Amino acid sequence: MFIGIFTKSRGSVANPDGINLLPDLRSFRTNNAFSVDDSDYVDYTAEDAVKNLDFDILVELSTLNISERAEPAVSFIRTALRRQKDVVTANKGPLAFFYQELRDLARSYHCQFRFQSTVMDGVPVFSPFMSDIPGCRIVSISGILNSTTNFILDALDRGQSMEQAIETAQRRGFAEADPAHDIDGWDGAAKICVLVRTLMDADINPFDVERESLSAVDLTDYQRSLSGSQKLKYICRAERQGDSIKAQVLPELVPAGSLFAGIKDNGNILKIETDGMAPIYVVQEAPTLYDTAFGVLNDIVAVIKK
Amino acid sequence: MFIGIFTKSRGSVANPDGINLLPDLRSFRTNNAFSVDDSDYVDYTAEDAVKNLDFDILVELSTLNISERAEPAVSFIRTALRRQKDVVTANKGPLAFFYQELRDLARSYHCQFRFQSTVMDGVPVFSPFMSDIPGCRIVSISGILNSTTNFILDALDRGQSMEQAIETAQRRGFAEADPAHDIDGWDGAAKICVLVRTLMDADINPFDVERESLSAVDLTDYQRSLSGSQKLKYICRAERQGDSIKAQVLPELVPAGSLFAGIKDNGNILKIETDGMAPIYVVQEAPTLYDTAFGVLNDIVAVIKK
Repeated sequence: MFIGIFTKSRGSVANPDGINLLPDLRSFRTNNAFSVDDSDYVDYTAEDAVKNLDFDILVELSTLNISERAEPAVSFIRTALRRQKDVVTANKGPLAFFYQELRDLARSYHCQFRFQSTVMDGVPVFSPFMSDIPGCRIVSISGILNSTTNFILDALDRGQSMEQAIETAQRRGFAEADPAHDIDGWDGAAKICVLVRTLMDADINPFDVERESLSAVDLTDYQRSLSGSQKLKYICRAERQGDSIKAQVLPELVPAGSLFAGIKDNGNILKIETDGMAPIYVVQEAPTLYDTAFGVLNDIVAVIKK
Repeated sequence: MFIGIFTKSRGSVANPDGINLLPDLRSFRTNNAFSVDDSDYVDYTAEDAVKNLDFDILVELSTLNISERAEPAVSFIRTALRRQKDVVTANKGPLAFFYQELRDLARSYHCQFRFQSTVMDGVPVFSPFMSDIPGCRIVSISGILNSTTNFILDALDRGQSMEQAIETAQRRGFAEADPAHDIDGWDGAAKICVLVRTLMDADINPFDVERESLSAVDLTDYQRSLSGSQKLKYICRAERQGDSIKAQVLPELVPAGSLFAGIKDNGNILKIETDGMAPIYVVQEAPTLYDTAFGVLNDIVAVIKK
């Protein structure tokens, strides 16, 4: 049962006995906002709701906020966990800045904190590498983790302009709300921090990541990449260097026959290297918004099952 | 502490207070068998040991036996579980024929049954798809799961002969003990059954799998595959068809730019398709025998941690 949906600037609905989900959503679709005419309309904020409503699971779906270090999402999550509520989030910000704190908070309050959609939209990339390879140590993580920029590079390869490519990515719904987050590497920086914190248990945030914007790419390099033997990709990378972690989001040339070069359209790839096993890759082919939604759904079902 | 190592035909060592692991292993390496001169040498069988020894974890590493439906491994595992001993196995046979029975047996006796090395040598391919995507249903599984045959096809591509390729595969240690298991598709058939049983919970065994030996490949087809636009790969596949599962191990031509075509040398790839999400792939690049060993080690560490 859904007892409330709260948005930042498009109104909110709530009802302790359960909202009228479908009529509310239809009204939202019509007006692009919840409206005072909706029977469940309320005028209090998400912050009030997280503090006072009687719910079982907080599903936190706000957008990435780098400059305010994941606020207000991280405060919502902290409040919910301290009230012993399970939390599911698709927002990478709170994990990129504060994963270990939130994990420990969830443990102390005996509740669940799940975040499958924060990296690679619903593909299981966390638990396999957090729980299933305890006999070895992860030494390096790399990947193409931002769909929009891979789509743009692939479209440029096929002769499209940058503007056409961005427009198509936004129309298909996988560009971030703020396209600068994609093109300037903030989305990738947040994702590599989420992976470093969850899989390598290191303390790093997006401001620590060496980041080169895709808009700074030298077209001469790019033309060279078109020779056939190399391809330009926008790569997130983190490596152990002694006791610290070096993390980067950089445009890089990769060999044409490699798995990274083979990631087309808005696909994603993650490469995990350990001190014992051969490299492992996880690939997601042509995800849609449904994949993010399924990631959240998978988390909700997992919370309920447990 | 290791209290015993039992082989089929190369002697055994055991000691309830712990064997002298390194001296025993050195002696094994020298003589290619345990010897009556080893201080821990015993003359009873693995079967006796599983029934009578006081151990915590059975690590079952015998080879695939299709014709005897996974005996004697499956009997060892049943005996150990009924004695409430945790079991780790790298042998795909018992799972290919009896996974659900063994899973239920482990549950009834409150012990752990882990098998990470049975498919893709230590890569986590089970728990992510058994536990992390409960909001959708797996409709199809496919993959290149046999290292030897992919290595052979890749070597033929590079101009080697079949004999040279098999010899190299055996020298590098990833060809199955009986190479017919690889080339006739029995290894792939067992693996697709393990995946179908664990991830789709269906009842199927290697004799139900439609199987075409790689030795039956038409070289005309193969030459065509060399045109550049296609590659020949040996593919394991399982698909839901109504209430049943259709499983196959067949040589297939795949498009040259595809991820399957990009699997080189002895690499493996697994593709998971669901009713909700975009296709997910897991790739293992150039595994060695260490990967199988790490899969077993990961399982042992996981058993101890739990």
